[in-house]
Amino acid sequence: MSLLIKNGRITTAADQYVADILCEGETITAIGRDLAVSAGAEVIDATGKYVFPGFIDPHVHIYLPFMGTFSKDTYDSGSRAALVGGTTTLIEMCCPSRTQEPLATLDLWISQAEGISACDYTFHMGVARYDADVEQQLRKIVARGIASFKVFLAYKGAFGIDDNELYKTLRLAKELGVIVTAHCENAELVAEMQQKLIAEGKTGTEWHEKSRPVQVEAEGVHHLCTFAEMTGAHVYIVHTSNEQAIEAAVAARKQGVRVWIETVAPYLVLDASYAKYVMSPPLRPLPNQDVIWNALDSRVISTIATDHAPFDFKGQKEMGREDFTKIPNGIPSVEDRINLAYTYGVKRGRIDLHTLVDACSTQAAKLFGLFPKKGTIALGSDADLVIYDPEYRGKISQKAQQMNVDYSAFEGWPIEGRPDVVSVRGKVQVRGGKFVGQLGHGQLLVRKPTHF
Amino acid sequence: MSLLIKNGRITTAADQYVADILCEGETITAIGRDLAVSAGAEVIDATGKYVFPGFIDPHVHIYLPFMGTFSKDTYDSGSRAALVGGTTTLIEMCCPSRTQEPLATLDLWISQAEGISACDYTFHMGVARYDADVEQQLRKIVARGIASFKVFLAYKGAFGIDDNELYKTLRLAKELGVIVTAHCENAELVAEMQQKLIAEGKTGTEWHEKSRPVQVEAEGVHHLCTFAEMTGAHVYIVHTSNEQAIEAAVAARKQGVRVWIETVAPYLVLDASYAKYVMSPPLRPLPNQDVIWNALDSRVISTIATDHAPFDFKGQKEMGREDFTKIPNGIPSVEDRINLAYTYGVKRGRIDLHTLVDACSTQAAKLFGLFPKKGTIALGSDADLVIYDPEYRGKISQKAQQMNVDYSAFEGWPIEGRPDVVSVRGKVQVRGGKFVGQLGHGQLLVRKPTHF
Amino acid sequence: MSLLIKNGRITTAADQYVADILCEGETITAIGRDLAVSAGAEVIDATGKYVFPGFIDPHVHIYLPFMGTFSKDTYDSGSRAALVGGTTTLIEMCCPSRTQEPLATLDLWISQAEGISACDYTFHMGVARYDADVEQQLRKIVARGIASFKVFLAYKGAFGIDDNELYKTLRLAKELGVIVTAHCENAELVAEMQQKLIAEGKTGTEWHEKSRPVQVEAEGVHHLCTFAEMTGAHVYIVHTSNEQAIEAAVAARKQGVRVWIETVAPYLVLDASYAKYVMSPPLRPLPNQDVIWNALDSRVISTIATDHAPFDFKGQKEMGREDFTKIPNGIPSVEDRINLAYTYGVKRGRIDLHTLVDACSTQAAKLFGLFPKKGTIALGSDADLVIYDPEYRGKISQKAQQMNVDYSAFEGWPIEGRPDVVSVRGKVQVRGGKFVGQLGHGQLLVRKPTHF
Amino acid sequence: MSLLIKNGRITTAADQYVADILCEGETITAIGRDLAVSAGAEVIDATGKYVFPGFIDPHVHIYLPFMGTFSKDTYDSGSRAALVGGTTTLIEMCCPSRTQEPLATLDLWISQAEGISACDYTFHMGVARYDADVEQQLRKIVARGIASFKVFLAYKGAFGIDDNELYKTLRLAKELGVIVTAHCENAELVAEMQQKLIAEGKTGTEWHEKSRPVQVEAEGVHHLCTFAEMTGAHVYIVHTSNEQAIEAAVAARKQGVRVWIETVAPYLVLDASYAKYVMSPPLRPLPNQDVIWNALDSRVISTIATDHAPFDFKGQKEMGREDFTKIPNGIPSVEDRINLAYTYGVKRGRIDLHTLVDACSTQAAKLFGLFPKKGTIALGSDADLVIYDPEYRGKISQKAQQMNVDYSAFEGWPIEGRPDVVSVRGKVQVRGGKFVGQLGHGQLLVRKPTHF
Repeated sequence: MSLLIKNGRITTAADQYVADILCEGETITAIGRDLAVSAGAEVIDATGKYVFPGFIDPHVHIYLPFMGTFSKDTYDSGSRAALVGGTTTLIEMCCPSRTQEPLATLDLWISQAEGISACDYTFHMGVARYDADVEQQLRKIVARGIASFKVFLAYKGAFGIDDNELYKTLRLAKELGVIVTAHCENAELVAEMQQKLIAEGKTGTEWHEKSRPVQVEAEGVHHLCTFAEMTGAHVYIVHTSNEQAIEAAVAARKQGVRVWIETVAPYLVLDASYAKYVMSPPLRPLPNQDVIWNALDSRVISTIATDHAPFDFKGQKEMGREDFTKIPNGIPSVEDRINLAYTYGVKRGRIDLHTLVDACSTQAAKLFGLFPKKGTIALGSDADLVIYDPEYRGKISQKAQQMNVDYSAFEGWPIEGRPDVVSVRGKVQVRGGKFVGQLGHGQLLVRKPTHF
Repeated sequence: MSLLIKNGRITTAADQYVADILCEGETITAIGRDLAVSAGAEVIDATGKYVFPGFIDPHVHIYLPFMGTFSKDTYDSGSRAALVGGTTTLIEMCCPSRTQEPLATLDLWISQAEGISACDYTFHMGVARYDADVEQQLRKIVARGIASFKVFLAYKGAFGIDDNELYKTLRLAKELGVIVTAHCENAELVAEMQQKLIAEGKTGTEWHEKSRPVQVEAEGVHHLCTFAEMTGAHVYIVHTSNEQAIEAAVAARKQGVRVWIETVAPYLVLDASYAKYVMSPPLRPLPNQDVIWNALDSRVISTIATDHAPFDFKGQKEMGREDFTKIPNGIPSVEDRINLAYTYGVKRGRIDLHTLVDACSTQAAKLFGLFPKKGTIALGSDADLVIYDPEYRGKISQKAQQMNVDYSAFEGWPIEGRPDVVSVRGKVQVRGGKFVGQLGHGQLLVRKPTHF
Repeated sequence: MSLLIKNGRITTAADQYVADILCEGETITAIGRDLAVSAGAEVIDATGKYVFPGFIDPHVHIYLPFMGTFSKDTYDSGSRAALVGGTTTLIEMCCPSRTQEPLATLDLWISQAEGISACDYTFHMGVARYDADVEQQLRKIVARGIASFKVFLAYKGAFGIDDNELYKTLRLAKELGVIVTAHCENAELVAEMQQKLIAEGKTGTEWHEKSRPVQVEAEGVHHLCTFAEMTGAHVYIVHTSNEQAIEAAVAARKQGVRVWIETVAPYLVLDASYAKYVMSPPLRPLPNQDVIWNALDSRVISTIATDHAPFDFKGQKEMGREDFTKIPNGIPSVEDRINLAYTYGVKRGRIDLHTLVDACSTQAAKLFGLFPKKGTIALGSDADLVIYDPEYRGKISQKAQQMNVDYSAFEGWPIEGRPDVVSVRGKVQVRGGKFVGQLGHGQLLVRKPTHF
Repeated sequence: MSLLIKNGRITTAADQYVADILCEGETITAIGRDLAVSAGAEVIDATGKYVFPGFIDPHVHIYLPFMGTFSKDTYDSGSRAALVGGTTTLIEMCCPSRTQEPLATLDLWISQAEGISACDYTFHMGVARYDADVEQQLRKIVARGIASFKVFLAYKGAFGIDDNELYKTLRLAKELGVIVTAHCENAELVAEMQQKLIAEGKTGTEWHEKSRPVQVEAEGVHHLCTFAEMTGAHVYIVHTSNEQAIEAAVAARKQGVRVWIETVAPYLVLDASYAKYVMSPPLRPLPNQDVIWNALDSRVISTIATDHAPFDFKGQKEMGREDFTKIPNGIPSVEDRINLAYTYGVKRGRIDLHTLVDACSTQAAKLFGLFPKKGTIALGSDADLVIYDPEYRGKISQKAQQMNVDYSAFEGWPIEGRPDVVSVRGKVQVRGGKFVGQLGHGQLLVRKPTHF
């Protein structure tokens, strides 16, 4: 069974050219002009369209028990949404609480995806506690092909770890060559300021940002980077939302710290006026968007992820009607990320196409041990391909989306392009913008440590 | 009983002029040319000499149970050393451990000084634990005239507090108008790096600096300043040793944080080659001295203190012969501070005389609620005066010093000036460079909060 | 003839206390409690009032041929305005054009003041050309007691000098121990952007700020500071208006450059909405005021001057009705500086009284070789005193002012205090807020170089 | 005529994979596994070797009248050296003096290369004067396919332009979509400090660095970036040598300035101890190398060029035996760049292979309008290929080099790899590390403006 994509404008992090791509089995086996059509091959004409490497979302939550409720997506809805949005690989946060065992938690998380997911997937292994037993489990987990950790400096008492645990996690990561992704907000300051605001009757979502101002995030980044400098561990700041946080990481990088920066789709296009949807770090005032786009364009920010975390506006977000601290955090966008970045980034002249690919695919592949299987279009790479139609015009609408949530933060927004065809290891899963594929086709990706 | 000082070159933080000073009782009652000599007045000719306001050392340890031993000075030796060195007011760190009660600890500390000290004194009240009971005690302590707190971010498990306690201490300080002085080094990083070095057989004092590098101190400053920004509390960074730490405070100040910076005498003149004496933060490489002098000259650093902490080299520092982490920290200099700053600062053209007075007296008086009783030469101020002889030439020698320690880090160093006469509230306590005064003359200073 | 000021709250850069001040001849001869009233002495009761050292305005224009017209004040109106506003010493910019001779220009400028000025005065000597002959004249001028230079990086072709002249001026200044004050805006960028805006029909005063954005000022500061670093000369940035410019100077200071920063009264209280009055650097957006106040409070900015430059709104500023580049620059405030800084600074909690005195008097005295004759209240200092009434309430009004201009940028603004009595070298020149003194009492101050 | 490269490890800025490359005519026409060997094709086995895109050196001097002498290379020796070193495209600085006409100068420069060069070439058009006539010529030059300018802020009176010319050059560049490369050192400071040093008898090459310290370079960068910000022009800082200069550009980039940074091979591996070879900006102290490598690794520096400028040590550099300012500047390295970056960068773990390709080829291609013809290995790209042998071991030696100079700054240095085969548009010009090709095969590349 083979797939031949003709005449697309192949666009990678570095290159752009028009050619045919032949996929045999799960792999790209030829790239050339006028490739011959073999018997039985499916042929797709990509004339006038871009062909991108399958996009990778390195920061999603599909299964997520959080703040007393559960996120709404399953790997059924979530992987369909990812694919329709052009994302062929998900890296989900596997989040044990302080009292849960890492191995069992990982198994639980895998069980949510296995046999269901329509796209490929892997996990960042959350470290919410550190002791000798946890350490043994983490070693086994890395040996099983989970080559990245996740720590929370925030969410004290839930996922958050203390400085001693942070040090030891980083030290282990350095030893094992594993990168540590980190949610950087000072837990204590958030907790105290939340308490103070609520006590003052400031209970509405407009106060959420005051409880987690930019300084609190920058403090987390500075803190993490110092620990990284002392241990030599490689670190990755998730969902970076503002200039002060970026600057803290850049200053560390100048000192030789191996640190990378992720931002997420909502910060590119939403501002504080969308506060009611509540995510953390919070949406910032409008001028902040220029900072984020500029840092992407100059490649100071490595990746665009989503922090996809699907909670219904009614029923779930409403839990916090009287108290913003009770609102499950997150703004789902796994389905929208590429269209938003293309429409509001590339088409508006803020980033070029290569940066789009690099930030939404290649960098994640390289940082998280997936390259060159994922993250590029090259001989021998997995045939994860996105044929993107730049002529498509449409609007984002909750009603039409695959994501299992009752709202879209981008409701009614025009988009100027969309994934037309999407393949995962040679199998077409999306056609004409619709999911036409097979659930369960997705595989758990085994990753080797690369951060020595 | 009155004291008339004739023809001195009166030198304050702002002014310099030649005049007579009349002290009646404890107070300066006249400053003028050719003041009449009243009957019974002691007259001192200060021609050719400077008259400075009594110097204030805002960071000393006299009584200090630490690392399983006790500091060697008492208020007998310590206050005599201070006075011979030109210091008329000591602000001692009152350091309860986590398990001790603040009020009882303060009483214990006061009992060490009361009736003994030859110079005036007050305390920064250490906060090593925070709960409702401690809070009540702290309120009483402030009401008793102790208008500053001290916290340790370092010394985990001993004096160090956690983030929650830090937040609450700062919040209380803000409410009460009390400034919080802080030892800024990340406790966890120090502890882990000490352990790592010792495990690697790196046990000598040359490794001490590696266990507390500049980043660890800068991290502490950044951390504290973020907490100060969030609470509005005013903070004071003790014993700042390097550029990265200074820059962290300066950046915060630019954001509106009310933060002041102290350095201590050893950083002005000692470098890493004196590592064997062991203090924390550690002595840094030589080029760092230029940074510190420059920051003093531009008044970025507000004060020069000592962190006087007298432990014998033999017997006490030797406890760490096999393990630098066991060495009681501190380099005594309460007796040497002014002579060092004058000889190696003013005479070398690094700072001017006004900066000397400002950094060694006036700023401390203003920041800690002692001004204008202390910190200047003005009508109505306490007659704490230092007649400083710029013609004196001598050498520092452990043998000749008042401080009760068996070494001087500055042994044999030339000094180009010394306090000739020193008065405390009108009473001459030092004459001809010798202590001639009365133990027990010193008073506990009652201070009002000013940091609202 | 003597003057006795009783019971004032004497307030200097460092001190505050209640006492009497006795002035005999031109000098302060006693400061004390209950000083005896000698025969013939004028006695002024200052109970409840502040007594400040006479304020110094280190940056004014009185006589100024500029942009084809002349400033409106003379030393008659100008010195009266200064005194009513509490300023007892003016340092005027003596501004030769490129074709004028320095000595002759200085004589011309002196002739405007001599025998007329009611307050003391001196000059910064403008350097608008540099050649061997100019150098000889500058040496003579310094020998005559003019111990500071002024250069313009802006105003190309008029006052502006090129890089070679700048280098040589700084080199000479270093040799002679003279400080160089500098107007820092890149001349070429201003000229080109003005031309571009006018060509685009953007002729209104709202475009003035676009022709001299903050970057252009910061560039000038960075440029000057590099030249200062290379020559060792001491430099002083006049009328600094924004954060980027301040940061450029602060960064240089950290490298050891001897640089001081001046701001001027309009930047403290006016913003871009007052653009029609036109000054350079331009008024910036409102948030900039916080930056300036904060930098004053932390003493990063040394001085508050005015850049007083009195041109009528009608007749003169109207010259630029069709073209903002033709408007004579400057917003007069020599009469308002202290009242504005007191009312909108001290009373609003942005700076304290000591900073007011330091920034408006003491620092200028020290930097420009006037200290301790000027800039403080001390024995032997000139009896330049301002008895300031903090209970006074009034409003600023063009009609009531001494300044000879037809508008006030602060028309109708409330002030919460004013100079009640002002003396110049012992002679009362202002009483009850009115000028009651003698024109011609002012003297040309002879200054010695201090910047070696 | 076709060329088939088998089994090489194809390595581009983004990708790495093993495949065959088929070149037909001048172009890459197929990339695949097991490509069929067509009749008449030359087949090269690249097993175990890297295949890189032809490297581009965006900053060389071949023909250069400078400081009264001429550089020694011609396009014969220079292009052979480039090719043996793996460089298939040279971008030479075309440097008119202030009095020469641009068009005639370009024609002169082209005439040096045309029919002689063995590799492809183009020029940055030097702008040493700006008037209406020059502007017309520049427009024609851009229309002829020269899509970049070069300006010198240094070399006053020779190549250097003044601020007005700089503004106008940038404004024209913005209009035409042309990037401006710039030598950033303040001309006046260099000239004055040279004069001062020579006058003090400091004539040896060890004083060269003192005449052009890092501040002077940083000043140039800051200056240029401000002009770029005001005009919107895109700029490229050539031969950036130190952290302060980098930081000035990075700060500008954060403000949205479109600025890119080049470093050159000597800064990667030489330090101040090699001062006798004299280049500008000068070689800096050793720790600076870490800064440069770190900035490359984090992609803050975009490109590695050479500033190849070949003057003999005897005869030419000796002109300055008595006066370092008379020494023709430049350290030739066009032949060594890739081997140095590979051996001392990649093999030492300082940068990875993708960064090597990106910095030495792809970025230059993209910035200077050569992409995707040059700078990558992709279908349709020019068949400029470097088969690099990582097993080769050798030493750099002047005797063996193609460059026509009498010394090598890297004499005797080991290299751990070298270009084995190099093709230019499908024609093999180097084989077994030797030039085996054809002079005159090189073409003048026509470039389109891309910097709008």
